[in-house]
Amino acid sequence: MTDTTHIVFLLFPGITQLDFTAPAQALSRMPGAVLAGAAARFDPIATDSGFAILPTHDFASAPQADILCIPGGHGVIEALNDAATIDFIARQAAGAEWVTSVCTGAFLLGHAGLLQGKRATTHWGYTHLLPLVGAEFQPARIVEDGNIVTSGGVTSGLDFALTLIARIQGDAVAQAIQLAIEYDPAPPFPGGHPDRAPEAVTAGLKARVYDAAAARMEAALRS
Amino acid sequence: MTDTTHIVFLLFPGITQLDFTAPAQALSRMPGAVLAGAAARFDPIATDSGFAILPTHDFASAPQADILCIPGGHGVIEALNDAATIDFIARQAAGAEWVTSVCTGAFLLGHAGLLQGKRATTHWGYTHLLPLVGAEFQPARIVEDGNIVTSGGVTSGLDFALTLIARIQGDAVAQAIQLAIEYDPAPPFPGGHPDRAPEAVTAGLKARVYDAAAARMEAALRS
Repeated sequence: MTDTTHIVFLLFPGITQLDFTAPAQALSRMPGAVLAGAAARFDPIATDSGFAILPTHDFASAPQADILCIPGGHGVIEALNDAATIDFIARQAAGAEWVTSVCTGAFLLGHAGLLQGKRATTHWGYTHLLPLVGAEFQPARIVEDGNIVTSGGVTSGLDFALTLIARIQGDAVAQAIQLAIEYDPAPPFPGGHPDRAPEAVTAGLKARVYDAAAARMEAALRS
Repeated sequence: MTDTTHIVFLLFPGITQLDFTAPAQALSRMPGAVLAGAAARFDPIATDSGFAILPTHDFASAPQADILCIPGGHGVIEALNDAATIDFIARQAAGAEWVTSVCTGAFLLGHAGLLQGKRATTHWGYTHLLPLVGAEFQPARIVEDGNIVTSGGVTSGLDFALTLIARIQGDAVAQAIQLAIEYDPAPPFPGGHPDRAPEAVTAGLKARVYDAAAARMEAALRS
């Protein structure tokens, strides 16, 4: 990597914005970092949270990534079917030093052929689908296999970004960024993962959201 | 509060985007939530992370907030001197059920007169300046005083949002949102706060960034 580190995030409609914005907050403070948010077009990207983000680049104008990062969200299903998006991921990944995903972004990496034979993770509601893209699910918040780093659901992107910064520029840089963003988490409940959440909370969320969402993802991956 | 909860975030150039995007991710999933990002103008808001966000409203068109949330960032200093911004905060706060801030957004609340005689917190690099807006610093990640809720630096906004959701709609709703965004944090280092970070990391960061930044904030607050 040169003194400049190009960090390219894929942006697409229906993105879970924190999958992008949390790692972007940490990675953009890494010395030499230049961040790009690349989308198929320059149109504003409607996020899942009621506001829109502007891409900095379209696919044609995006720089070659040193770090490629693919966020997730319900828009992943549409993006899976978009050849230009999958081509962009494959082309960028071929030249990147690190190829990464947050949440269900793993399935975009996988659909582009990048998780074949790799250990990987994704949002807890979708981990059983990783074999459909040739990956082996490893139960961890961050999974590194060669230059491929996948992380779990949404908020894992911050832990992933700080871990990657430590790998690239050393612990002191990552620790200073963690302190600057006062990342000393105090979640109000212990159960941010099904392993620790009350069973009823997990069951309710699966019934209301994730069983159907995972079925839609499975259909998209098999089509 | 009616079945619809209007959540209005102030947006301004130079915002620390995670101060907005992290609580927005959690709060926008609260049943009945309608999120607004209000700025002086409809122009794209350049954030601190290399990308821009589109406001959903300008100050004139923003709905009355049920929850008003003021993020921080280096752009706070310019915003402190903008009468339209301070007027917007004061006007919205007068009709809001909850008046909140993340990070150095506390100084915008304070400059609008809302922290007079209140216990409050802000980013660790600026806590000594809270008395300049009439507030008493309380060393906690989230500080509630009446309907005013202030939180610490940047990433505290997620803990704040989940805590507020639990207060408004109950633990079950907040716990489900925490699980949906897989908020089961695993920071790579224990030191996300000066109380726990190695002294050299804190001292280095103060020397490089926060001593000068706090001096600029102090000058803006005294002018």
